Amino acid sequence: MLEELKKEVYEANMLLPKYGLVTFTWGNVSGIDREKGLFVIKPSGVDYDKLTPDDMVVMDLEGNRVEGTLNPSSDTKTHLILYNRFPKIGGVVHTHSPWATSWAQAGRDIPCYGTTHADYIYGSVPCARNLNEEELKNYEWNTGVLIADLFEERKLDPMAVPCVLCKNHGPFTWGKDAHEAVHNAVVLEEVAKMAARCEMINPDVKEAPQCLQDKHYLRKHGPGAYYGQGNL
Amino acid sequence: MLEELKKEVYEANMLLPKYGLVTFTWGNVSGIDREKGLFVIKPSGVDYDKLTPDDMVVMDLEGNRVEGTLNPSSDTKTHLILYNRFPKIGGVVHTHSPWATSWAQAGRDIPCYGTTHADYIYGSVPCARNLNEEELKNYEWNTGVLIADLFEERKLDPMAVPCVLCKNHGPFTWGKDAHEAVHNAVVLEEVAKMAARCEMINPDVKEAPQCLQDKHYLRKHGPGAYYGQGNL
Amino acid sequence: MLEELKKEVYEANMLLPKYGLVTFTWGNVSGIDREKGLFVIKPSGVDYDKLTPDDMVVMDLEGNRVEGTLNPSSDTKTHLILYNRFPKIGGVVHTHSPWATSWAQAGRDIPCYGTTHADYIYGSVPCARNLNEEELKNYEWNTGVLIADLFEERKLDPMAVPCVLCKNHGPFTWGKDAHEAVHNAVVLEEVAKMAARCEMINPDVKEAPQCLQDKHYLRKHGPGAYYGQGNL
Amino acid sequence: MLEELKKEVYEANMLLPKYGLVTFTWGNVSGIDREKGLFVIKPSGVDYDKLTPDDMVVMDLEGNRVEGTLNPSSDTKTHLILYNRFPKIGGVVHTHSPWATSWAQAGRDIPCYGTTHADYIYGSVPCARNLNEEELKNYEWNTGVLIADLFEERKLDPMAVPCVLCKNHGPFTWGKDAHEAVHNAVVLEEVAKMAARCEMINPDVKEAPQCLQDKHYLRKHGPGAYYGQGNL
Repeated sequence: MLEELKKEVYEANMLLPKYGLVTFTWGNVSGIDREKGLFVIKPSGVDYDKLTPDDMVVMDLEGNRVEGTLNPSSDTKTHLILYNRFPKIGGVVHTHSPWATSWAQAGRDIPCYGTTHADYIYGSVPCARNLNEEELKNYEWNTGVLIADLFEERKLDPMAVPCVLCKNHGPFTWGKDAHEAVHNAVVLEEVAKMAARCEMINPDVKEAPQCLQDKHYLRKHGPGAYYGQGNL
Repeated sequence: MLEELKKEVYEANMLLPKYGLVTFTWGNVSGIDREKGLFVIKPSGVDYDKLTPDDMVVMDLEGNRVEGTLNPSSDTKTHLILYNRFPKIGGVVHTHSPWATSWAQAGRDIPCYGTTHADYIYGSVPCARNLNEEELKNYEWNTGVLIADLFEERKLDPMAVPCVLCKNHGPFTWGKDAHEAVHNAVVLEEVAKMAARCEMINPDVKEAPQCLQDKHYLRKHGPGAYYGQGNL
Repeated sequence: MLEELKKEVYEANMLLPKYGLVTFTWGNVSGIDREKGLFVIKPSGVDYDKLTPDDMVVMDLEGNRVEGTLNPSSDTKTHLILYNRFPKIGGVVHTHSPWATSWAQAGRDIPCYGTTHADYIYGSVPCARNLNEEELKNYEWNTGVLIADLFEERKLDPMAVPCVLCKNHGPFTWGKDAHEAVHNAVVLEEVAKMAARCEMINPDVKEAPQCLQDKHYLRKHGPGAYYGQGNL
Repeated sequence: MLEELKKEVYEANMLLPKYGLVTFTWGNVSGIDREKGLFVIKPSGVDYDKLTPDDMVVMDLEGNRVEGTLNPSSDTKTHLILYNRFPKIGGVVHTHSPWATSWAQAGRDIPCYGTTHADYIYGSVPCARNLNEEELKNYEWNTGVLIADLFEERKLDPMAVPCVLCKNHGPFTWGKDAHEAVHNAVVLEEVAKMAARCEMINPDVKEAPQCLQDKHYLRKHGPGAYYGQGNL
C-alpha cells in the first residue's frame, strides 16, 4: 500500500540526520497522497539507523492508522491538522534543529534580514504563541489548530511561508512534498542561524527592504521566475 | 568478572567521542551492578582509541579496587557517592562537554526554555556551588556529597532531574544504566547550547510555562506516557 | 572549447561544498580566459553532487551564452560586470557562507582586527549598500555596477581587497583565477567569524594598528614578500 | 640527520588539521634536540596534504638553516627566541585557531573560569601587547622577545603557563616536546571557546577560586599528581 510514498517519506526522514537537523529521534517527516486522502509518517521514537521503509505508518485524515504495526509519531495529529487546513501542502517536517528551536524558545518571529531568507520565505517566519492549560489537554491537535489559525489571522499563504515556530517548542516546515518540506527545514535552520548572528553583529539591524524581498522571492517563485533550469 | 557490564560500560564510554562530548580523555562513564554492589568505571587518563573492555576497573562501594590493574578515573569517588546516595541510578557520566561546561563555569542553573529540555529534565538543571578550601582536601568525594546534598535541599528527584552542573567545573549526568546516562549527557549538551542561544536572541526570555513542562515530561515518563513504542 | 578552463572552474566549484561554504546550490564560481574574452560559469540551480565539467556554461563579456545547454548561474551578470570593471581578476565566487552573510545582513564593513585578515585583505572588507527599487529592475547587473563603483569611490584596489559584502545578501570574492577566488572565500568566512567573536569578547575592540596591517600584507604580497616558497 | 625528530615534528604538524586548528597553511610546529642545539620546523606555506617528513627544515639556534631545501616557516625566529629564552621547552606551536585568535584580536587575557583551564594552565592565559613600528622591522624575532619579556615581567613559569596570545595576531603554545605543544594548542582552543561562551551566559562571571585552580593544576602536575596512570 502506497509503497512509492512510503519509500519517499522514508528517504525524506533519512535526510534529517544527514543535514544535522536531528539528535536521536527528535524529528519526523510525513507525506500525503491527496487523491487517496492518506498520509505516511515516521513511527514514534524509532532510531534513524534502524528505520526501514516498511516501518512507515499509514494514516487517514481522521487520525486512524490504516497500515503499520508501530505507533505513529507522537506529533501525528499536528501533521494531520496541517494537511486538513493547508490543502496545497504535500509534506510536513518537525525537528528540534538547534537554531530554529532557539528562536522558538525565545518566542520571536525571525525577521527577514537577507536574500537567503527571501529566496524561500516571504516575510518573517511567524512564531505561534504557547497553548494554554485547556488547549494542552489535546496538545498535538491544538498545536496544528494554533498554527493554522495564526496563518489565517495574519493572512499568510502557507505556500509562500512554508514554516512556523511553536513557542518553547520548535519548528514545523512543509512543502509540495516530503522532500521539499525537508529542504525548507534546512533553509529555516540556516536562516535562523544567520539572523541570530546578524543581530549579534549589529543590534540595530533592520529588515531587508520590501522591494529586495519581493525581487528575490519572485526570482525563484511564480510565473516570472528565472532561477534554475525550469523543468530540469 | 562482570564481563557483560564491563562491555556495556566500555561501549558507553566509546559513545562520548562519537557524540562529540569529549576532547582527549576529559570524560568517564561508569555502570553499577546493584545486586553485587560493584561498579565498573573507565581507567584514568587512557585514550579512547586505545581503550578496551578489559581496561575497565571494577570497584566496590567502599572505594576499593576489586579488579583491574589500571587506576580508576580520578573522579571515581564522585561516582561512588552518587551511587550511594541515589539508589535508583545505574550509570554515571562526567564530561567537559563545551556548552554544559560553559554554563557550569558561568555558575548558573539552566532554565527550562522549551520542550527539548522538558522531555528529559523536570525543571531547571541545578548548578552546585564551589567547594570551599576545607572540602577541596577530599575533592572528588565532596563533589559527590555536594551534589547529593543539593538534590536533598531542593527536594529534587534524581530520576526526574538526571543531571547537575558543578560550578567552575562541568556536568555530571546519570540514568538507569550507563547508556541512558550517556543519552542524558547528549541531551544536556543540546539543551545547554539552545538555552545560551535563546538568551542571546531574547535577553528577556522567560521559562516555559509550568503546564507545558508538565505535559512534555509526562508525555515521555510515567504511567500516562505515550511517546515511542512502549517496550519495543 | 576551453576544456582546461571548464575543468578548472568545475574543480573550483566543487571546493565550495568541501570547505563548507555552500548549502544546496547557494554558490557559484566562474573563471575567465582574458585572451579570448570568454568566461566559464556554473549552471544555475544544479546540485553539486550532480555537477560535471561539461555542465559548465561559456559566456562572452556581452552576456551571450557561447557554449552549453544549461542556463548559467542567475548571478552571471554580476560576474560579467566584475570582469569588465576589474581587468586583473581571473575568477569570481559568490556564496551565502554563514558568517560573511551574517555581516552582509548586518550591513557592516568587517574591520581588520588581526593578521589573519591583514595577510589577505588590505583594510576593511567593504559592505556595499542595497540597490534601490529602480536598480533592482536589473538586479544582478546593478549589483556588479554597485560593487565596482564602491571600489572606485573608496579608491580600493580589487587585487588588495579581493572581496565585498552586498548588504542583505552575501559576499563576492575574486582572485587571479577561480582557485584563488575560492581561497579568498574561505579566508573571508574565517575572518568574518573571528571578527564577530572578537567583538563579542571585547565590545570596545579597536582595529589592528596600521603598521601591523602593512607589515602582514606585505609579508605575503609585493616585491618584499617572504612567506612561502616563492614559485614553488 | 635527526630523522627521529623530523618524523615526530612531521606527525605533530599533521595533528593540527586533524584537530581542526588550521585552515590552509596557517600553523606550524617545531621540536628541538637540546643536546645538539638544533630544532626542526615545518617549511613555510606548504599544504598539509603534501607535507612529508623529509620536507622538515633543520635550524640551529642562531637561525641558520642546517638541513633542508625549503624555506622554514615564516615564524621561525619566534620559535628560535622561545627555545633560547625558555630552556625547558621542547616543542612550539603557532596556529590561527579561531577561538584563541578571537581572544588575541580582542586583546584580552583569558581568565581561568574552570577546571578544564586549571588542569593545564596555571592562572590566566596572558595576552602580549602589539609590537610598535620600530619593533615590527624585525617582526618575528621581536614577537619572541615580547613573549619572553612578558613572562619575566609577570613572573610566569612557561612550564605552568604553556601558552600566550599575541595581540591582533594569534596564539603560541609549547610543551616538553612537539606533541605536548600540540596538545596544549587543543586545550587552549577549548578553553578560549568555553571562556567566551561563559561570559556570554553570565557577563558578571568571576574567575574560579584560587584554591580550586591550585587543586586542579596540582592534581595533574607535580609530585602529588594523581591523574592518569603514572608512567604508562
